[in-house]
Amino acid sequence: MKLVHDPLHGYIELDDFAVRLVDTPEFQRLRRITQLGFAFLAYPSARHTRFEHSLGTFHLAKRVRGYNPEVEEGVVYAALLHDLGHYPFSHTLEGIFPKHEENTAWIIKHGSVGDVIRERYSIPEFLNLLKHPVVSGDIDVDRMDYLVRDAYYTGAAYGVVDLERLLRNLKFDGRRLIVEEKGLIAAQNLLLARAMMHPTVYFHHTAKIAEAMLRKAVELEGILLEEIRTMDEIDLISKLRNSEKPEVRDLIKAIDSRNLYKRAYCSKVELEGKILDEMKGVLEDEFGHLAILNYPPKPKYEERNAFVMTGGELRRLSDVSPLVKSLVEMKDVHWEWCVYAKKEIKEEVGAFLKSFLDPYRSNYSGKERG
Amino acid sequence: MKLVHDPLHGYIELDDFAVRLVDTPEFQRLRRITQLGFAFLAYPSARHTRFEHSLGTFHLAKRVRGYNPEVEEGVVYAALLHDLGHYPFSHTLEGIFPKHEENTAWIIKHGSVGDVIRERYSIPEFLNLLKHPVVSGDIDVDRMDYLVRDAYYTGAAYGVVDLERLLRNLKFDGRRLIVEEKGLIAAQNLLLARAMMHPTVYFHHTAKIAEAMLRKAVELEGILLEEIRTMDEIDLISKLRNSEKPEVRDLIKAIDSRNLYKRAYCSKVELEGKILDEMKGVLEDEFGHLAILNYPPKPKYEERNAFVMTGGELRRLSDVSPLVKSLVEMKDVHWEWCVYAKKEIKEEVGAFLKSFLDPYRSNYSGKERG
Amino acid sequence: MKLVHDPLHGYIELDDFAVRLVDTPEFQRLRRITQLGFAFLAYPSARHTRFEHSLGTFHLAKRVRGYNPEVEEGVVYAALLHDLGHYPFSHTLEGIFPKHEENTAWIIKHGSVGDVIRERYSIPEFLNLLKHPVVSGDIDVDRMDYLVRDAYYTGAAYGVVDLERLLRNLKFDGRRLIVEEKGLIAAQNLLLARAMMHPTVYFHHTAKIAEAMLRKAVELEGILLEEIRTMDEIDLISKLRNSEKPEVRDLIKAIDSRNLYKRAYCSKVELEGKILDEMKGVLEDEFGHLAILNYPPKPKYEERNAFVMTGGELRRLSDVSPLVKSLVEMKDVHWEWCVYAKKEIKEEVGAFLKSFLDPYRSNYSGKERG
Amino acid sequence: MKLVHDPLHGYIELDDFAVRLVDTPEFQRLRRITQLGFAFLAYPSARHTRFEHSLGTFHLAKRVRGYNPEVEEGVVYAALLHDLGHYPFSHTLEGIFPKHEENTAWIIKHGSVGDVIRERYSIPEFLNLLKHPVVSGDIDVDRMDYLVRDAYYTGAAYGVVDLERLLRNLKFDGRRLIVEEKGLIAAQNLLLARAMMHPTVYFHHTAKIAEAMLRKAVELEGILLEEIRTMDEIDLISKLRNSEKPEVRDLIKAIDSRNLYKRAYCSKVELEGKILDEMKGVLEDEFGHLAILNYPPKPKYEERNAFVMTGGELRRLSDVSPLVKSLVEMKDVHWEWCVYAKKEIKEEVGAFLKSFLDPYRSNYSGKERG
Repeated sequence: MKLVHDPLHGYIELDDFAVRLVDTPEFQRLRRITQLGFAFLAYPSARHTRFEHSLGTFHLAKRVRGYNPEVEEGVVYAALLHDLGHYPFSHTLEGIFPKHEENTAWIIKHGSVGDVIRERYSIPEFLNLLKHPVVSGDIDVDRMDYLVRDAYYTGAAYGVVDLERLLRNLKFDGRRLIVEEKGLIAAQNLLLARAMMHPTVYFHHTAKIAEAMLRKAVELEGILLEEIRTMDEIDLISKLRNSEKPEVRDLIKAIDSRNLYKRAYCSKVELEGKILDEMKGVLEDEFGHLAILNYPPKPKYEERNAFVMTGGELRRLSDVSPLVKSLVEMKDVHWEWCVYAKKEIKEEVGAFLKSFLDPYRSNYSGKERG
Repeated sequence: MKLVHDPLHGYIELDDFAVRLVDTPEFQRLRRITQLGFAFLAYPSARHTRFEHSLGTFHLAKRVRGYNPEVEEGVVYAALLHDLGHYPFSHTLEGIFPKHEENTAWIIKHGSVGDVIRERYSIPEFLNLLKHPVVSGDIDVDRMDYLVRDAYYTGAAYGVVDLERLLRNLKFDGRRLIVEEKGLIAAQNLLLARAMMHPTVYFHHTAKIAEAMLRKAVELEGILLEEIRTMDEIDLISKLRNSEKPEVRDLIKAIDSRNLYKRAYCSKVELEGKILDEMKGVLEDEFGHLAILNYPPKPKYEERNAFVMTGGELRRLSDVSPLVKSLVEMKDVHWEWCVYAKKEIKEEVGAFLKSFLDPYRSNYSGKERG
Repeated sequence: MKLVHDPLHGYIELDDFAVRLVDTPEFQRLRRITQLGFAFLAYPSARHTRFEHSLGTFHLAKRVRGYNPEVEEGVVYAALLHDLGHYPFSHTLEGIFPKHEENTAWIIKHGSVGDVIRERYSIPEFLNLLKHPVVSGDIDVDRMDYLVRDAYYTGAAYGVVDLERLLRNLKFDGRRLIVEEKGLIAAQNLLLARAMMHPTVYFHHTAKIAEAMLRKAVELEGILLEEIRTMDEIDLISKLRNSEKPEVRDLIKAIDSRNLYKRAYCSKVELEGKILDEMKGVLEDEFGHLAILNYPPKPKYEERNAFVMTGGELRRLSDVSPLVKSLVEMKDVHWEWCVYAKKEIKEEVGAFLKSFLDPYRSNYSGKERG
Repeated sequence: MKLVHDPLHGYIELDDFAVRLVDTPEFQRLRRITQLGFAFLAYPSARHTRFEHSLGTFHLAKRVRGYNPEVEEGVVYAALLHDLGHYPFSHTLEGIFPKHEENTAWIIKHGSVGDVIRERYSIPEFLNLLKHPVVSGDIDVDRMDYLVRDAYYTGAAYGVVDLERLLRNLKFDGRRLIVEEKGLIAAQNLLLARAMMHPTVYFHHTAKIAEAMLRKAVELEGILLEEIRTMDEIDLISKLRNSEKPEVRDLIKAIDSRNLYKRAYCSKVELEGKILDEMKGVLEDEFGHLAILNYPPKPKYEERNAFVMTGGELRRLSDVSPLVKSLVEMKDVHWEWCVYAKKEIKEEVGAFLKSFLDPYRSNYSGKERG
């Protein structure tokens, strides 16, 4: 057994099998995958990595299993490895490559970590464990760790959650992880905390801009899925710094020195696919890599799928709590798409987009910001 | 100047005038008025008093004034003294005596603290300052201090608020304390934190029972308003312990040894005044002090009156935030009335109430619990 | 099993036997015994009581026993009850009554808590458990709880201790609680933390003055040991407030309104017993209750008795750590005796003492302060 | 003015000049220089960088200047830039390149940050400010920030310091930063905290091994001072990963996957220069890069140069506090030199060194560990 010190959970105890999983190059790589992408450009202290978060998730899974011995043991190792597939800067590149869960599966199948896993589990069996509700649900140990951890590292007050009360009131019923009556407020708070971390930290526009710039650089460089799968941030950044394409070098230099693009045009109005495609095309033609569209998917608050046991009845948390219900309404409050542009041409790009969108204006209404 | 160390705000600086106000017996009495009444029976660590809270409120008022120099200086002293009128165990006795604000005014008029105030302000002028929006609004320094303080002392995670961000984004417009755009999330969080502290801490049934028992003892003892106005908790409890009436001594002994009454009957259904009065009467006749009705007023979440400046417009926070709006709906979720009874007769009292209420049952519907 | 929420340890789990001990009037009385006496006059937030501390000590004892199953179970209940005998304001009155440990034994023998204990242990057996090294040594769970708790409630930075590391590295060898190599720094830090809490919090002169005033009031009132044994702070203060002796009422009123005596004369020079007695007499004759001598015993830092296992050898912590060794030297750095006097006669009393002590001056040398 | 959120200091306010300094590539590079080198291999959460620390140091310098307006303004900018010259992994490479202070001066002279500085200060003037006692003394803002920050990020309890009290009790006398009487305990605690962070965090052997391995790789790769001066960690690691020398690639791969060398031989006995040189030679000949000597300089605790004003007299803190004095004695307690070797040859290397040192054994005595 090995003890790892963690500022959030005190000591994390790793059993021998966990130690062997942690000691694989695939897991050690997570030390070089920043948890919150470029959030550190807005919150300089947010330098934590997927490594610590994975250990914390493992620790919480063990706690849940302590109260629910019928949860199979493999779940705690699935919790440990659930983020193995994150690309450099975490979610940043998911727009251009498959989601990290897909890459986690790939790494488990192809990496040396798979050899360790196979001593105890078949690969398909283990991949199944990654979807276990303790690891991956609406109230799960992943979320419980990252909210509290992100709050600690950014100093944001919003991620504070009564983990102890929640942990002691989660009941696995064989199919779902259910919140018991006494944990209702704590569960509600977890979902609210998440909702408030979104605009404050996760969607901070400084991070969004840098992330869009990195995506553009990666696209221009033509990095392949096979390459990115196992790259860490050092590999990626150094490759881009040494690119043969001046645009790529420009972009990465701008990120490195935090000389970021600015918001040229932002809007909360959804665009039809056809218009969107056309806009992308003309932007590309007109400004090349100097203007970047960031049209994020609408956030999903799957809070509807959290269940509580109240008064002997199993109910949706969103039916019990008007607060949680209102999270669904809030979903879009902070959503917007933007075009970012190099500072010097910001006005020009803004004007260009206004006149491009003007003809379509009758088709929709909404709030936007030039 | 004097420095007072505070675990929440670091050091609180008291200027000479503040020191002289603090040094009055009326202010020192607040050291013996528990902030959260009998919450310590559920959260043993909640032993803080109105004294620390008053210093903290003063400190935050000074911070707000630092960013809003047009706020008149007297407001910070009003913040210091705003809770001077609390009776023993804070809100506990407000059901049978006038609200503490009325008593604050009385103490200021009649206590030696008034002599200090008069050196700088007329009494009517000062009483007016107590209603200043910085001290007494929906987003005010009172609330900002007590939420964070109550969270610290109970260890409840829900009262954590980004005070710094909120403080830096409050603008006094001469009439209202307005939240600026950048403080929106923090303000929202303040109101949510309050909403979550209610069921968890403020309405904890153990505290509610002890409070109802104390009210009954005070009523039976026939304590007069003139007496209670300046009593501290030592005065009150020792008077009740030494009462000539055995029922009073019984009640206080039960509180002291945490041998509390139990919930005999609780309901979320509102009762008509007539039925309520009749029920009180028959309960009293049948069980005397051994059964106590606690029919609390419905909670008011006045969140509707918090204003934010967003996109150059002044709007209600509840119009901007679906979450805050849903707080209005949540208002009643945790409301209920109860009859508490001595453990030995709990079943009997419950049955009695069921049969008493049965004839009226067709008049209303709702959820209740025997 | 019952859960109690605690801001330091999260949740404290009370088994049924512990609940029954906690539910006795003797244990509930601890809710009305302030942990740090009058320290709240200097640190207003220090309002915690022996009740929370006792629960915390119990919790830590269970943790130690978790790592050392050979520790007998009774030790955790001894930890729970170890402070049962504290008089009002904790150590304040130990100068005039027997030490609280003696009173703990008395209460266990005579109180209803003894009936609960007897179900499992004989009284002599249980009294023996109170001296178990886990409960009462140089590195013990009592100290571990109170340092961290006092730091939390005062906001003093000095009491922060790596409890987790220490807990995991304490080994009971059947006779002593030994610190293992990996816990060396944490143990050292515990002792240092204690050494720094002394001058900052525990010996704060404001608290010392109020405590001396209370002792004087209790002496003047002639309160008997039989009375004080089971009094709580409400009993004591209300008795003194209602004293027939005006001096007693004066003293208690001065404490209540924090209108404290001042230091008239302080010295770091020890006095011979004869001179001390004579001084007491003349002070009493001249000034009565208006001047109070506080001649505290020299502090004992028994750190010498903490043992560590290092390099396979059992050694004294003070032999291994020059820092701990230097604590012995520091012992006297903050010691001093004082005469406190009513503000108006402070100068007079100071002058009186100077001239009283002048003839003896050749007998000693040292630093003093008029 | 710009606000930066920091979990330790709340909000850090950057004035326009500070923003311009922060916006230089030289300062942004600090985001990619880990504060504690390879401590994250032992404390995974210790991922903070020189960037946050520099902002924090700036903030504290402003606080000190707030209480000491006679401190010239340039000092706060010197605090901001004091760590500009750190090489990748902070102190790790100082053994083979000049100390980072020298490189800070070089960067200020040659980097674009110098252009910003020159708007207000001559370069020699600014370099002088870097040596100002507020920035660089025994009690300075650098140390105040890093101790508290390192404690926060590692979760180590030992770095907790009462910063507020210390800040309010530092007086600049035109030559020295003096601790005033009321700050004595806080200052003492700062030095103790540092002394305890050393063995626990700063000298953790896992970090020491990785650092020695990196130094070896850098030496083998033959990286020049001119190159390293402005490299960040991405530059350095990717260069080593892509080295043409297999030994270099081996070393860096071992670090990346935390497959570290082990302690083959450690000793607390100092070696004569001649023996040391000979030992290096034979080790190199016998084992090449598979065995690495780490012979660190003895730690300096310059605590002797901290001054306090006590009783109107200026005295050394070490003369006033036996605890601080004992830090000098402790200096060597944790010092040792080691030879690290690849796991497979650990025993062989240990045996080799034992027999190498045997002939010299009569020359010295002391404790060692094979």
